[in-house]
Amino acid sequence: MPVSEFTLIEKYFNRQINGDSAPSVILGIGDDAAVLKVPQKHQLVVTIDTLIAGRHFPDSTPARDIAYKALAVNVSDLAAMAATPAYFVLSLALPESDEAFLKQFSDGLFEAADEFNIHLIGGDTCRGPLSITIQASGYVPDDGYITRSGAKPGDHIMVSGKLGAAAVGLASKTGEIELEPALKLQALESLNRPRPRIDLIPTLREYASSAIDLSDGLVGDLAHILEKSQVGARVQQDFIPVFEWVKQNNAYTYALIGGDDYELLFTVPEERVTALMQSVSNLKLDISDIGVITEQGYWLHNQGGPTDLSSKQGFDHFGS
Amino acid sequence: MPVSEFTLIEKYFNRQINGDSAPSVILGIGDDAAVLKVPQKHQLVVTIDTLIAGRHFPDSTPARDIAYKALAVNVSDLAAMAATPAYFVLSLALPESDEAFLKQFSDGLFEAADEFNIHLIGGDTCRGPLSITIQASGYVPDDGYITRSGAKPGDHIMVSGKLGAAAVGLASKTGEIELEPALKLQALESLNRPRPRIDLIPTLREYASSAIDLSDGLVGDLAHILEKSQVGARVQQDFIPVFEWVKQNNAYTYALIGGDDYELLFTVPEERVTALMQSVSNLKLDISDIGVITEQGYWLHNQGGPTDLSSKQGFDHFGS
Repeated sequence: MPVSEFTLIEKYFNRQINGDSAPSVILGIGDDAAVLKVPQKHQLVVTIDTLIAGRHFPDSTPARDIAYKALAVNVSDLAAMAATPAYFVLSLALPESDEAFLKQFSDGLFEAADEFNIHLIGGDTCRGPLSITIQASGYVPDDGYITRSGAKPGDHIMVSGKLGAAAVGLASKTGEIELEPALKLQALESLNRPRPRIDLIPTLREYASSAIDLSDGLVGDLAHILEKSQVGARVQQDFIPVFEWVKQNNAYTYALIGGDDYELLFTVPEERVTALMQSVSNLKLDISDIGVITEQGYWLHNQGGPTDLSSKQGFDHFGS
Repeated sequence: MPVSEFTLIEKYFNRQINGDSAPSVILGIGDDAAVLKVPQKHQLVVTIDTLIAGRHFPDSTPARDIAYKALAVNVSDLAAMAATPAYFVLSLALPESDEAFLKQFSDGLFEAADEFNIHLIGGDTCRGPLSITIQASGYVPDDGYITRSGAKPGDHIMVSGKLGAAAVGLASKTGEIELEPALKLQALESLNRPRPRIDLIPTLREYASSAIDLSDGLVGDLAHILEKSQVGARVQQDFIPVFEWVKQNNAYTYALIGGDDYELLFTVPEERVTALMQSVSNLKLDISDIGVITEQGYWLHNQGGPTDLSSKQGFDHFGS
């Protein structure tokens, strides 16, 4: 017997919100809309992202991982603005009312929500080709947000984590490359379970002049900062932190244009770099200094000499 | 040559927001997220809805109308909460990068946005089966929102506009019924261009004990109020305002369970009804008093006697 939309939402998504952990949620799931109170002297940061089966994730991806990633990529956008995650709404299109799928999906969703301390306050389910849209919101102290447009010549370019693991995971999944089992597992974990860098929000607020999250790949995402800030950049390939296999196989393409890293890329004024590095060392954060912002041009330096990146782009959904 | 996602957003959706008309928009389209400032002593009301081609609108629907309706149905949810529309974000999945479609789509979207005084602040486009997700937000004075759960026995049940035109329009489009051309045009206009009742927001705030917007049909939507308020209802069919053709053809099904009306259904305490009707008459608003809230039971009265509605539902996306 088919299950109604209302029953589905009640059963799998209407988890009670704890008033202590979410004091700003006035009214959650179950009405025409939800109601929120933004804390005083704070602004609201708003983002939206859709994941489509077969395009943003392989059709065979487990439902738990789909849900986890759908929320993670939105929270990553909030982190890039230095916004503390607060709440999200979900729109889920499903080919059929599949309770086993929904059970796993909601498990993965709430697992991610708990991990990122963000609350589901509303949603909509409908029948259609599998796609997940999440709109996530977070808070920043008034005017404390970080944009793509604040980079200045002389700023250092910083990146978190290690790049390329997710792209290597995807390549191993499609059979493009062969990995030994333990490495494959690790790479697939990076692909399916990206960890948005909410731990870096205080660091961004204190030091960053601009920031973006790495969804399309370092080369394309840094290009967005350069374009919005109207500056150039010089990046040292050897300084880019990469997934071990990338270095061993000199396969930097995965780290440069592979995408799906969900690490943060940000710029820091030269005079703040020493203090940042001291702080990063104290907090044991994995931040690397990979280059500098320049007046113009976009160059990658490696042992083969400089490469002009100004005409290249990362993954682009409508690109060739 | 394929057009990039970034170019598409720039070209068709990045309309400059006028600071005077949208003082709360701090940062609009073009970064990882947008930034808002909710006015003091106000709460934020948040809703999300997805429209899928072939399911929520016929595949042949013009792009202008698809966009218009996608925004209208979200604004209707805000109106039902008595929230003044403020901003929205869009996620658009398109099978291919079709500039003619996008031009028309953005025209229809901004036409609706201007009409409803709501601002596009961010979005995401990707390739996939045609679907449109909009997350819209509005403001209410602190605790001034209206829910589905405040109806009390003795309250009068009010509905705006005339019901059934959109459902009749859909039936004429699929060939289920034949309409004379002028009437068909009118019915299709109701189907493709629903007018969310933002004009009723002040009335709801002043008089309503509960409210919902009519998306699934009167019978099913009133059932939501009854369930959330834990009450019953007695509705007089003859008092329900309907599209002229519905009355002439005694085809009340279109008005009762047809859906897609996007009128408002709300309850008003008995002692406030006279004042409401005076106000409605002064403001020339089209509000009808169609029945009363009772302790329990759900009955429709017409010339054939009472019909028990307690087991019926309006259109349900996963229902049989």
